[in-house]
Amino acid sequence: MSHPVSNDYVHSLDRQYVFHSWSTQGALDPLVIAGGAGCKLWDYAGREYLDFSSQLVNTNIGHQHPKVIAAIQQQAASLATIAPATANLMRGEAAKRILSHAPENFAKVFFTNAGADANENAMRMARLFTGRDKILSAYRSYHGGTGAAIVATGDPRRVPNEYARGHVHFFNPYLYRSEFDAADEQEECSRALKHLRRVIECEGPNSIAAILLESIPGTAGILVPPAGYLKGVRALADEFGIVLILDEVMAGFGRTGSWLALDQFEVRPDLITFAKGVNSGYVPAGGVMVSQPISEYFDTHYFPGGLTYSGHPLAMAAIVATLDAMAEEGIVDNARHIGQEILGPGLRALADKHSLIGEVRGLGLFWAVELVSDRQRRTPLPAALMAKLKSGLLERGLLPFVVENRLHVVPPCIIQEPEVRQGLAAIDEVLGTL
Amino acid sequence: MSHPVSNDYVHSLDRQYVFHSWSTQGALDPLVIAGGAGCKLWDYAGREYLDFSSQLVNTNIGHQHPKVIAAIQQQAASLATIAPATANLMRGEAAKRILSHAPENFAKVFFTNAGADANENAMRMARLFTGRDKILSAYRSYHGGTGAAIVATGDPRRVPNEYARGHVHFFNPYLYRSEFDAADEQEECSRALKHLRRVIECEGPNSIAAILLESIPGTAGILVPPAGYLKGVRALADEFGIVLILDEVMAGFGRTGSWLALDQFEVRPDLITFAKGVNSGYVPAGGVMVSQPISEYFDTHYFPGGLTYSGHPLAMAAIVATLDAMAEEGIVDNARHIGQEILGPGLRALADKHSLIGEVRGLGLFWAVELVSDRQRRTPLPAALMAKLKSGLLERGLLPFVVENRLHVVPPCIIQEPEVRQGLAAIDEVLGTL
Ligand SMILES: Cc1ncc(COP(=O)(O)O)c(C=O)c1O
Ligand SMILES: Cc1ncc(COP(=O)(O)O)c(C=O)c1O
Repeated sequence: MSHPVSNDYVHSLDRQYVFHSWSTQGALDPLVIAGGAGCKLWDYAGREYLDFSSQLVNTNIGHQHPKVIAAIQQQAASLATIAPATANLMRGEAAKRILSHAPENFAKVFFTNAGADANENAMRMARLFTGRDKILSAYRSYHGGTGAAIVATGDPRRVPNEYARGHVHFFNPYLYRSEFDAADEQEECSRALKHLRRVIECEGPNSIAAILLESIPGTAGILVPPAGYLKGVRALADEFGIVLILDEVMAGFGRTGSWLALDQFEVRPDLITFAKGVNSGYVPAGGVMVSQPISEYFDTHYFPGGLTYSGHPLAMAAIVATLDAMAEEGIVDNARHIGQEILGPGLRALADKHSLIGEVRGLGLFWAVELVSDRQRRTPLPAALMAKLKSGLLERGLLPFVVENRLHVVPPCIIQEPEVRQGLAAIDEVLGTL
Repeated sequence: MSHPVSNDYVHSLDRQYVFHSWSTQGALDPLVIAGGAGCKLWDYAGREYLDFSSQLVNTNIGHQHPKVIAAIQQQAASLATIAPATANLMRGEAAKRILSHAPENFAKVFFTNAGADANENAMRMARLFTGRDKILSAYRSYHGGTGAAIVATGDPRRVPNEYARGHVHFFNPYLYRSEFDAADEQEECSRALKHLRRVIECEGPNSIAAILLESIPGTAGILVPPAGYLKGVRALADEFGIVLILDEVMAGFGRTGSWLALDQFEVRPDLITFAKGVNSGYVPAGGVMVSQPISEYFDTHYFPGGLTYSGHPLAMAAIVATLDAMAEEGIVDNARHIGQEILGPGLRALADKHSLIGEVRGLGLFWAVELVSDRQRRTPLPAALMAKLKSGLLERGLLPFVVENRLHVVPPCIIQEPEVRQGLAAIDEVLGTL
């Protein structure tokens, strides 16, 4: 590369050659990023950004954590890649550590490249284990971009992609915009469970292999379920012999202030899917945690799924180092503490000040701010104003995560109070200008 | 990790915690691999293997190529991960290099994590670009393990996974076991094309979005298509306005003795999927090369697909270093030369000597040896004898790639004559014992 590397050069290379996810290609003007460390990123002109997005809510450990970087470099020096059929040290160590954070009675890990194929394989396991056909999932959900994962997804990105069969959607709880005309959490919970029971009954319980649910739906709005909801879903799954898959791809591994988000609810699933936070995405990886009964089933039944990079050594080394560093450095506790003491109260204070904020909800470092043009009617803030919010934050050096009319506040789990205060001040300032 | 690392320790960790691809879990006894270099791998007891499999036909550049390892370590030191919506130097450089090996008129690259999701996204593009529904693919094919990719796959692993709709299969050429009772290559070609035309006509040309085809079907048996076949498929695609997707996941990036396998045929596809050889799998990566008309379509139409790790910096740095090293070191020429002068003739000599060999076919370093118990009837060698072949080779320090009744001879593209001779001698010896 003889070119001097500049923002312009990188931007023009991108626009000439790179086809982007979830976009109209002609309309793109991507931000150039050159490097990062901790909660900071920068471009080639030395402009810095405070990362309040954790990228796609994956860099829970922050950017360039030295222990994880060293582990990747070390593994690269000894063995970068090996086929999944072999036995490999880091693969075993990673699986062992992941299971140490799973509920009791979880036995094995099937490794994938990311979140989508984790869900693909969990659905495969559930269908084969039950001998049943259908997957029930929530309208307010995102489960990935591949064949079955995108159709399990409830959000509208599903609609142009409906080439998988056997998927049925139900409404999940979201009190702020209740599908059930509920007045409070308890009512939202009981009505959502009644609705789910009716969907199960009408679809035919014996045709349903699995209920697939994000422990806390993320992209859909960080919809912390009401107390009792996940327990109620588990009871329905038990009553009808349905496998419960909890998708912890975004909520798992520290994000919510506990190792898994499900730890904060009275629920034990049959399968857990993960990716992102497990190694902060430093190397692509995801997977399925498999509970004992399903694991045993496949001891004597062929599992017809797989992929070239299952249990990829670099990804595995990054998992081992990430989980060890998170434990050693108390990063999960930090997420809980900062969320409870600083970020949560800070966002609520902004809501008291700005009538544009309709609701603030979340836990740990997993928060959503609903922006509305009319608090009473809860009218979503128009896209043009959301775009202004986004550009205003970027101008102030804050990298935000904006979805529809919401600002998701999801910084790395290593963040400290001063950076939180800096980010809150930027949000405060920009809200004042809208 | 306070345990002394030994084969036993790694094996027992694996058996306790790791769920494997394409297997009955209770029956597994995985080979332990500790490290590797070039065409060699070894375990913790110092036992060495000559890799005649390139793992899953992905380590085209051999194990631990120093330039690629250094590039991964360097990129890790500066920026391990970044969201796909940003612009990133290595992503642009990787896309530019990949397109330099594509046919003229290819414009952009969409990056994925692997081969399966490359095919998922190519099918998505074809469906949206044409506004049509069906994907035609070959019975003798493998396209990946996710929702639509596994149903596009023709091999029997599709059958327990048929949850995607809009897939139709046709018979592709395979003279040795002709579906068309053809007597020679030319007849196989013309009958296969007639068959494909009839499938298109009977399915309704206006319902067909794409024909998805491996340039050279790999896992299905390294079925080098007869001269004229791919050109004929292109003509049918043109006649009926169908997108032609060539899957180069296994055949691409040096394996066949040319940069892409399609370079050796008179064919220009509309989309090309790749993974494996593009960075030898050192970091999980794959993608779709997009030709100008389809790229332009998505300049003004939303592309409803994506993934967290699209264009992952570590994977991109590995692509840049791999493609540069392959060019600098003449690795593609080496594959052609060794295939033509040493490995091909060597395998044919074995066929002259051993009546167990029914056919030898291939090119570059992409060869299949069909093992038969009856040469006249072409009866596949029974599984028990194939298992003996495999264990015999492993005992002699050769890591083989065995599929059904075939030995696929697919060493790294950097292999030199002495190692080829060593491997051929091991095969010769074991065939003599069967
Ligand atoms: C809950 C959830 N599941 C699955 C996925 C898909 O993961 P990936 O993009 O790695 O395929 C995501 C990605 O955002 C997610 O948030
Ligand atoms: C031709 C072909 N396409 C697609 C795939 C799927 O690739 P992956 O296993 O990386 O998903 C493979 C894997 O062997 C392949 O050989």
